[in-house]
Amino acid sequence: MPEFIDQDRALLKGLNFAHFVTLNEDGSPHVAPVWIDVDDQGRALVNSAVGRRKDRNIRRDPRVGLSISPRDDPYRWTSVQGTVVAIETGDEAEGHIDELSQRYDGSGFTYTPGQTRVIYRIRPDRITRSD
Amino acid sequence: MPEFIDQDRALLKGLNFAHFVTLNEDGSPHVAPVWIDVDDQGRALVNSAVGRRKDRNIRRDPRVGLSISPRDDPYRWTSVQGTVVAIETGDEAEGHIDELSQRYDGSGFTYTPGQTRVIYRIRPDRITRSD
Repeated sequence: MPEFIDQDRALLKGLNFAHFVTLNEDGSPHVAPVWIDVDDQGRALVNSAVGRRKDRNIRRDPRVGLSISPRDDPYRWTSVQGTVVAIETGDEAEGHIDELSQRYDGSGFTYTPGQTRVIYRIRPDRITRSD
Repeated sequence: MPEFIDQDRALLKGLNFAHFVTLNEDGSPHVAPVWIDVDDQGRALVNSAVGRRKDRNIRRDPRVGLSISPRDDPYRWTSVQGTVVAIETGDEAEGHIDELSQRYDGSGFTYTPGQTRVIYRIRPDRITRSD
């Protein structure tokens, strides 16, 4: 599998949003902005809630896309074509959304009653980036 | 077809990049940042070059996605699921890339010899946006 380089990791660990693509039932693309992260095995992480469109899409078809630019320079970007290789709920997913909330908003995550958080671990199959 | 509201048009006509999704031959999503525009018939416009991956993808499958945030506020966004309903080359496409270059970079477009510019007119089939 291709590996993220420092330039990509800076984007994945920064305050940048990723535009995250999943595939609808008819194969058309669904895209929405998300918080983004990377684990120590080089997989990109997205945290969502069970039952949302992107969650339903991923459980049907694990092929996804990601595109990230830093806030201050849209000409710098990393795009990923990838596959969700793990879906995790429970303490791991709850702790992770809190971490992301601290990073992006500077405060803990405000839980919505009845919502089940979920992490998708995304193996990059193809990484492209600006020069 | 759903219509862009002022909030969307401000994004489509601003200095913001869109993250643009096309579908590869195997149905997986390809995503890359692009300059973005909108015409007076409410169709989003992307300008690219003939033969690029996104061009080959669109000619095979016209279903696309777009996601845009302003540079200064990632919590404001508009996402579009759409269909390319027209593909145009020639003077229209050449003039349009010059316009975009003036808007984004403040100078005319530097042509690459042998490159054929192309406009995709994207009918929005579904528009979602931040509150």
